[in-house]
Amino acid sequence: MKTLIESAKAAKAAAGTVALLDTETKNRALDAMADALAAGAGEIVAKNALDMARGRETGMPEPLLDRLMLNTARILEIAEGVRQVKDLPDPIGEVLEKWTRPNGLVIEKVRVPMGVIGIIYEARPNVTADAAALAFKAGSSILLRGSASAFESNAALVRVMRAALEKAGVTPDAVCLVEDTSREAVDQMLKLRDYIDLIIPRGGASLIRNAVLNATVPVLETGTGNCHVYIDESADYAMAEAIVINAKTQRTGVCNAMETLLVHEKWAEKHLSPLLKTMTAKNVALHGDRAAALYCEDMTPATERDWADEYLGLAMAVGIVPDVRAAAAHINRYGTKHTECIVTASAENADFFRKTVDAAVVNVNASTRFTDGFMFGFGAELGISTQKLHARGPLGLREITSYKYLVTGTGQIRT
Amino acid sequence: MKTLIESAKAAKAAAGTVALLDTETKNRALDAMADALAAGAGEIVAKNALDMARGRETGMPEPLLDRLMLNTARILEIAEGVRQVKDLPDPIGEVLEKWTRPNGLVIEKVRVPMGVIGIIYEARPNVTADAAALAFKAGSSILLRGSASAFESNAALVRVMRAALEKAGVTPDAVCLVEDTSREAVDQMLKLRDYIDLIIPRGGASLIRNAVLNATVPVLETGTGNCHVYIDESADYAMAEAIVINAKTQRTGVCNAMETLLVHEKWAEKHLSPLLKTMTAKNVALHGDRAAALYCEDMTPATERDWADEYLGLAMAVGIVPDVRAAAAHINRYGTKHTECIVTASAENADFFRKTVDAAVVNVNASTRFTDGFMFGFGAELGISTQKLHARGPLGLREITSYKYLVTGTGQIRT
Repeated sequence: MKTLIESAKAAKAAAGTVALLDTETKNRALDAMADALAAGAGEIVAKNALDMARGRETGMPEPLLDRLMLNTARILEIAEGVRQVKDLPDPIGEVLEKWTRPNGLVIEKVRVPMGVIGIIYEARPNVTADAAALAFKAGSSILLRGSASAFESNAALVRVMRAALEKAGVTPDAVCLVEDTSREAVDQMLKLRDYIDLIIPRGGASLIRNAVLNATVPVLETGTGNCHVYIDESADYAMAEAIVINAKTQRTGVCNAMETLLVHEKWAEKHLSPLLKTMTAKNVALHGDRAAALYCEDMTPATERDWADEYLGLAMAVGIVPDVRAAAAHINRYGTKHTECIVTASAENADFFRKTVDAAVVNVNASTRFTDGFMFGFGAELGISTQKLHARGPLGLREITSYKYLVTGTGQIRT
Repeated sequence: MKTLIESAKAAKAAAGTVALLDTETKNRALDAMADALAAGAGEIVAKNALDMARGRETGMPEPLLDRLMLNTARILEIAEGVRQVKDLPDPIGEVLEKWTRPNGLVIEKVRVPMGVIGIIYEARPNVTADAAALAFKAGSSILLRGSASAFESNAALVRVMRAALEKAGVTPDAVCLVEDTSREAVDQMLKLRDYIDLIIPRGGASLIRNAVLNATVPVLETGTGNCHVYIDESADYAMAEAIVINAKTQRTGVCNAMETLLVHEKWAEKHLSPLLKTMTAKNVALHGDRAAALYCEDMTPATERDWADEYLGLAMAVGIVPDVRAAAAHINRYGTKHTECIVTASAENADFFRKTVDAAVVNVNASTRFTDGFMFGFGAELGISTQKLHARGPLGLREITSYKYLVTGTGQIRT
């Protein structure tokens, strides 16, 4: 077994050469990775079966087992995902700005790779290939620290991808798996400033919190989404209902699902009863404040936790507010800076909401569920950032790069 | 005395309103601040005298006393700096990108304020006004934690600026001073994730290191610059000499001064003796490897520390390398990702150096001393970033902002 430091050193040594690869070479290698994943499906599924068996033995819950499970169809999907990353434009080398100073110096701001990207994630083997492909296309090497409970699957996926890289004439250390699956290795990884340029934690709230609070390597905080829909006084009923149903129920375990519904008191008088009836008919459990309880018999009183936490399931909090200001204040207090939505016919209130609500994505008359790389047109993503530094929202290829300034002179000195 | 938390809460409460100020209001307030600083010079100088007296008593070294000292001329300069920030374009509200998705959603990426910016700095009262003006123009409130040894000066500057803000109809809490000057307050400030969006440490290596290693608030690492000049085989002697003299001696205590000179072995044979003679004539102490020692009698053998640390004074390390590859490898090993320079007539080697050297700023045939906000045309700056996340190089107005996505629909839901 390689130690964490050995894996990190390998990734760091590879970063220099990955950064210099041209687009064609990177694309050829990504194609080779996709082919190899498809061809290696049998081997990968066999290794995944070991993780699955151990998961069942240790009582892993059914939804987690489903996320862990690989079959041939899923591996072909993963391979297709790698091919989609190949088809995205290469972000590296783009000249973002260029100007000439009065002294004749030409300054260019050019997009460059991040270097070594570390990712810490849960038992989702698809992330292994997604993250490797994205980092590679973005010119960085990657250090993958997946869950111990998916280790056999991850090791098989990485083995297959590394062999493909090598065959394509690229250093296999562009994709490195952390073989030390101890918790201590995570804590150590969070502090490897000499080897890792960026860490992206991807998973549940506690995994992200651990990274954010303990890392000395710069972190891109992703994920938790306590998203709100606010229905303004002027909102059209049909539009509001469609957005609320979609935001809450289209997929419930995801970070861009709605968790709290806020309703203007006047709109509530006219429309909240039928809307809540629709939601309970869809098996959504309701937790509300006293004013909301007037519109539904089947409502649990909301506690502080109902406003603050994600349900990630068929439940939602409902609050009544006097106006858009109160809605924005509630959201800025309880939101996690992910995605917030207003349904309104008022341009003025839409504008106020857009300016006042502090979130990566602010939607007017559109479901919160659109916040992801594919829906934004970025392609695959490494997560959704909820911090304000570096990148907000979907982390596509450009969001995992850096830039440098190139200054070209003819001997200029400062006087 | 306000506690740190009270100051942080005030800054946070102000951030929401500062973010919404239009350009005209911000500019009017900045003008008022500049006027008030000039008018308050007497009061500020009097308070500064208290800090100076205590500094002398406690044996503060002369260069630090000079940085701490305020007189009327310096305060007028500070006021002029605030006016220069006023004249910079307002970065807030700029639409960075805009596109329409096939489903009709319009997505705009818009520049928005960071929120609350915390700055931790040394006994340089000019930073107090610079940072306040920059943050304010960038739509953020600022929490200033200056050195205890400059507290009277900082408190006077902040009092004057806050009074001017209030007179201009703006919340004075846009500019908050941390009144608790204990070390514990710094440690606590680094972890105030609920109140501070970004912390910028500005000062010496240990101050920055403390912030980087202990903060849970996102940090923009600034500063230390172990900058190199590499003289390639084909370099013109006059150009190389001018750049080396300028990079080393034009100002020595700054982060963009050259600390190590690397020389191609062939160039060294022809030109290094006279160059080193020139440098010793300018009182630059030389530390070199064995090969470099051949070209100068007055050279101390270089140790690991000579390659790794900044001198910030009239001293430099000198190393001989076989080619541009070895130069880049040395720089990537010992550099601090600040500013690196090649002097060359070879377009090919310039290109290799640009691509391979990992630094915020890579110069071809130009002194390292150009890396700052004014020289880049950004205006005043909050520091020079040496990290790869968020912003590299000079931190001007745009670099202390964030962005958000505004998604506008007509009722779209995800299917």
